[in-house]
Amino acid sequence: MFDLKLYFTEKNKQINAALDEILKEDSSWIAEAMKYSLMAGGKRIRPVLCMAAAEAVRGNPKDVLPAACAIEMIHTYSLIHDDLPAMDDDELRRGKPTCHVAYDEATAILAGDALLTLAFQTLSSVRAEGHSRQWLHIAGIIAHAAGYRGMIEGQMRDIASEGTLPDLNALEDMHALKTGALIQASVKSGAILGGGSRTQIEHLEVYAKNIGLAFQVADDILNVEGNQEIMGKAVGTDSTRKKSTYPSVMGIEKSKAFAGNLINNALQSLDVFGTESDPLRAVAMYIIERKR
Amino acid sequence: MFDLKLYFTEKNKQINAALDEILKEDSSWIAEAMKYSLMAGGKRIRPVLCMAAAEAVRGNPKDVLPAACAIEMIHTYSLIHDDLPAMDDDELRRGKPTCHVAYDEATAILAGDALLTLAFQTLSSVRAEGHSRQWLHIAGIIAHAAGYRGMIEGQMRDIASEGTLPDLNALEDMHALKTGALIQASVKSGAILGGGSRTQIEHLEVYAKNIGLAFQVADDILNVEGNQEIMGKAVGTDSTRKKSTYPSVMGIEKSKAFAGNLINNALQSLDVFGTESDPLRAVAMYIIERKR
Repeated sequence: MFDLKLYFTEKNKQINAALDEILKEDSSWIAEAMKYSLMAGGKRIRPVLCMAAAEAVRGNPKDVLPAACAIEMIHTYSLIHDDLPAMDDDELRRGKPTCHVAYDEATAILAGDALLTLAFQTLSSVRAEGHSRQWLHIAGIIAHAAGYRGMIEGQMRDIASEGTLPDLNALEDMHALKTGALIQASVKSGAILGGGSRTQIEHLEVYAKNIGLAFQVADDILNVEGNQEIMGKAVGTDSTRKKSTYPSVMGIEKSKAFAGNLINNALQSLDVFGTESDPLRAVAMYIIERKR
Repeated sequence: MFDLKLYFTEKNKQINAALDEILKEDSSWIAEAMKYSLMAGGKRIRPVLCMAAAEAVRGNPKDVLPAACAIEMIHTYSLIHDDLPAMDDDELRRGKPTCHVAYDEATAILAGDALLTLAFQTLSSVRAEGHSRQWLHIAGIIAHAAGYRGMIEGQMRDIASEGTLPDLNALEDMHALKTGALIQASVKSGAILGGGSRTQIEHLEVYAKNIGLAFQVADDILNVEGNQEIMGKAVGTDSTRKKSTYPSVMGIEKSKAFAGNLINNALQSLDVFGTESDPLRAVAMYIIERKR
């Protein structure tokens, strides 16, 4: 039986050490704000997926660490900006005050900007002789996923959808953009940098698409059924804000069944791989079993 | 006599066409907000500098267009975020309502994020066979200049300095970060992509450093003596906000002499080049002669 907890512990150690290394010599106010949010105890699912995808195609997961770090920086920047008063106006994140509460609004905006910029600086600073083309390629994939046709458009639609009538297709599109795109980019980047074949990359894209959506459905379910203390953030907020969510559209039981189906699809797409994709299998299971 | 107006007209046509091409098929709300600010009639000094630097080292300026566009996107994103209520709270920019006034605050934050992301997507999408290493290299230079050790740190210091006692060294450091870093990156990127030698790049860096600072001193002077109608934005705002500026620290006449000296230094650094650096010479002169 594959030990996912141990796997996450080991990978998180490497990811956190790499993130730490990048920012360790900076003690400016803005660098402190960046570190505050970056080191606030995130689960590191995206960077772990990136490394696990490299492993699935028999690449060395350590070689993709700059991509894993860049993706986590982009994820963190998006949380900082989403939490701003002009957006979701959240005061708590991972059990700690959000960046604009701990610092101030201007600093939070700039810390987000700085993490986004640092992500691309990290991707551009890789000195892998003869592999520049690949790194440039995955920088483009990540930028597209994070951009106005991906994550940012998802956030726009999420804001616009508050208080509107729920519609399943619109909800799915919104999540595919807001959460799915960066998760897909994480897996695809790892697979490309790990030297995966075209077929392997295609299978991993199907995997990523399914777990990406399942992740969001599970998040919606947790917002209804989750434990505030375990999660470190408020629950029931979607309902208060009259947000369209899977539970609000299809009910809680059907939402759980839907998430389960997505995970089955994800697992099936891994059939072409051997034990080297066990970490990806375990992550898929974890997504619907997690408590936070 | 070199005709800078004609040169700017020609280059701006190319830059605007390239920017237009990148966003033309998008009609989403966020894409509209991005275009609104990107096409608001900026002077395009940074992208023109990038192209002119390529020309100075006898490269083809058209080859560097993706870098020129990326730099203008980053400049525009920084203006959108600087104008936000939590930062400078400006309602007018280039004679038009600022992005958060024309749209709303959430859209303005995301439009800025999206332009920053699109800049790196643009740099990553260049398909120049055998030149990936160079593009990755200049993406890193631009990211460093725009990041928390460059432009963003400059904005942090600018915000922190409001209402404090003026200090010349601190002022110069702030401007070197806030405005100088991206101007230097513009020139350096153009020179590298244009195939410049190490010595040529060093000379162009001295040029860029001097015009970068001169540009800011001239901006401060314009905020005192400029014509609001010609400039398309409010004047006298620095004084109202008790901002440290060159005129407030050394007086208006000494500020003009200082800017003149910087431009002389910039021109001297171009002595090693022939007529192919005439555009850069003309830009240097323009910086202290401009009315907006």
